Amino acid sequence: MDLQPSPFAPTELPQMDALDGFRPMTAAMGMKYQGRDDLLVVEMTKGTSVAGVYTKSKCCSAPVDWCKEHQGNGSARMLVVNAGNANAFTGTHGVSSVTTVGEAAAKLADCSPSEIFMASTGVIGEPLDPSFITSAMEHLMKDGNSVDWHTASAATMTTDTFLKVATASADIDGVPVTIHGIAKGSGMIAPDMATMLSFVFTDAPIAARALQDLLSKHVETSFNATTVDSDTSTSDTLMAFASGAAKERGCAEISEGDDPRVETFSDALSALLKDLAKLVVKDGEGASKFLSITVEGAESDEAAKRVALAIANSPLVKTAAAGEDANWGRVVMAVGKAGEMADRDKLAIWFGSMRLAHEGQRDPDYSEEVASEYMKNAEIDICTHLGVGEGSATVWTCDLTHGYITINGDYRS
Amino acid sequence: MDLQPSPFAPTELPQMDALDGFRPMTAAMGMKYQGRDDLLVVEMTKGTSVAGVYTKSKCCSAPVDWCKEHQGNGSARMLVVNAGNANAFTGTHGVSSVTTVGEAAAKLADCSPSEIFMASTGVIGEPLDPSFITSAMEHLMKDGNSVDWHTASAATMTTDTFLKVATASADIDGVPVTIHGIAKGSGMIAPDMATMLSFVFTDAPIAARALQDLLSKHVETSFNATTVDSDTSTSDTLMAFASGAAKERGCAEISEGDDPRVETFSDALSALLKDLAKLVVKDGEGASKFLSITVEGAESDEAAKRVALAIANSPLVKTAAAGEDANWGRVVMAVGKAGEMADRDKLAIWFGSMRLAHEGQRDPDYSEEVASEYMKNAEIDICTHLGVGEGSATVWTCDLTHGYITINGDYRS
Repeated sequence: MDLQPSPFAPTELPQMDALDGFRPMTAAMGMKYQGRDDLLVVEMTKGTSVAGVYTKSKCCSAPVDWCKEHQGNGSARMLVVNAGNANAFTGTHGVSSVTTVGEAAAKLADCSPSEIFMASTGVIGEPLDPSFITSAMEHLMKDGNSVDWHTASAATMTTDTFLKVATASADIDGVPVTIHGIAKGSGMIAPDMATMLSFVFTDAPIAARALQDLLSKHVETSFNATTVDSDTSTSDTLMAFASGAAKERGCAEISEGDDPRVETFSDALSALLKDLAKLVVKDGEGASKFLSITVEGAESDEAAKRVALAIANSPLVKTAAAGEDANWGRVVMAVGKAGEMADRDKLAIWFGSMRLAHEGQRDPDYSEEVASEYMKNAEIDICTHLGVGEGSATVWTCDLTHGYITINGDYRS
Repeated sequence: MDLQPSPFAPTELPQMDALDGFRPMTAAMGMKYQGRDDLLVVEMTKGTSVAGVYTKSKCCSAPVDWCKEHQGNGSARMLVVNAGNANAFTGTHGVSSVTTVGEAAAKLADCSPSEIFMASTGVIGEPLDPSFITSAMEHLMKDGNSVDWHTASAATMTTDTFLKVATASADIDGVPVTIHGIAKGSGMIAPDMATMLSFVFTDAPIAARALQDLLSKHVETSFNATTVDSDTSTSDTLMAFASGAAKERGCAEISEGDDPRVETFSDALSALLKDLAKLVVKDGEGASKFLSITVEGAESDEAAKRVALAIANSPLVKTAAAGEDANWGRVVMAVGKAGEMADRDKLAIWFGSMRLAHEGQRDPDYSEEVASEYMKNAEIDICTHLGVGEGSATVWTCDLTHGYITINGDYRS
């Protein structure tokens, strides 16, 4: 199937220089895709620390199980990502596949299998033949050249229509460090479990526990605040790797996430994760509109987020956006179904800077014409005030279009 | 917008004779629709008992508030239903509209306003001018003729493409009684709060409390086991009215829902509610497939239902059905995201009588060809065994098609 590129595809990609301690390589395995690279291997320097956040699916994939099991050691030497087969719901065969790949990679990198991390994305339930990966990996480690980070990201794509990369700078106690991030994902995207696949790399010397603290904190307001279709993948993986190479430039080693010296890094990481998360939503299957849904005046931030997600996941809100219909009544419906405290008679709704509803009814100044005009924008902000407290949250989603139906009616075949 | 009739539109409607104690009448108000009846008034004999189940939306409509407030009295004399305007999120104006209609109706029927029940369906947030209803009602009560139950049901339709009616017989202690049911609804259909609008009428002499017990019990396995789009309406209403006219034929009066003499009535009511609920799903906006989702082997019946709903509400499962793709991996995904206990390595999935997955992986006998052939059926049964307990549940839904997007991209305009 030829996918139309998303209208939100960035016209320019950020420059991403080589990053000390990381060596990305890609290969075309010929396992599912033809004529494109579908394997990413990132070799990492000794002492690289690792943190991760994974899907909460009760049917998570074999590589997710593997990563969860080994992450506790806090040390990484290689990341292996394949596209085209999720190695999910593959039973004992799946376990044996990841073990084969993990052991082969450990031999090539001269490390323990517990320092190998893996992710797989693609079809669920199809047995994965590990020999495609092991032979391509062997070739790469012997004769492979480093690739740039854009090429690295491209090798992980499935139904994605554009590359998702971001980069940020920070300093730790005066020493500049770099963060690179890549992500893939377009459908089967729902919050509260990170996204499909995203990987963050930094040369900052940050210990695994501190890295985990920062990642767990910022995932809530980035990937866990997005949804394309409310469907949670079996394979969602967000990992961060810190090579510590900046130590050689005098960078302080960070062992705790709340170390005040890591503040600008933390802010930069947060912004980078938000950028990547928004890119995933902007490439949401069939997306023609990007929606920012803000809920204020809720009982708590958590309640605000649940209401925002109810709005963001409503097929009726999403199809109205696709039809450029300022159908704020459907926002009322979604607030009502969310089950959180809301004062119907104080409820207010804004589209952009226009207040459409106020004190539980249509705003007296409501203009259908002006509201409809606003809906023609590609990026739409919807803000709802519940009138019961101080809690607030923002989530991001896209509209639900004919494109989504077309893509998902015959993705597998 | 001209809506294509659902492929599930019944080719024949059940015969529904006049029912003692009820007088249905309809009128064309010209409030929103042109050239069709959009007001249903059912006058009821003195002593008719009433029961109801309503939306759990926190933003429920003014008529829902009215019905909830007055239902406790247990006595009904008139039902007034309008299509085209939901009178939801209409603030104090909405309250004053229902009060005006309720008081006018009470005067015409010579009863208390608390014996008038109302329901409204249509656009949310649009002020409803009660004079359309009161003047049509006045005309009907003076000069109106009774209509048959099919015509009654037709007056409540909005995006429905076919009439939804059902009838059943039962006997109470040897005396035959009749139950007639009508329903409307096509989009904004989600379970756990009854459906858009459905009304059940019987000549059986069943006291309000007993009627409520029966209705509350059977709604769980009928309307509350359906979903079209996971979006819960502000206006969902299911009411039952019992005129007691069968007393004249010697029927025993029933005052408790667990009276053994009401057993065949209870079974007939349950079957009738299931019939109506399935009709609503079969007219789901854009539906081309009807899906029965059964979950077995769950920790409890409640857990089974939550997993069944996660499958039924998954856009990826629904679009796969639309595309006739036997994509059982998406069923695995939906089981995983439901958050209920499931043993991934014991999970089994059947499509019809074919087992596609077994013990946590693809069934060795899996045939893509045979599975694909099965997906061409209009009615598809998906059964999942979670492998952890004895709980089970069945829910009904439809597929997600281009038709849904088209209908909801410009419903309001």
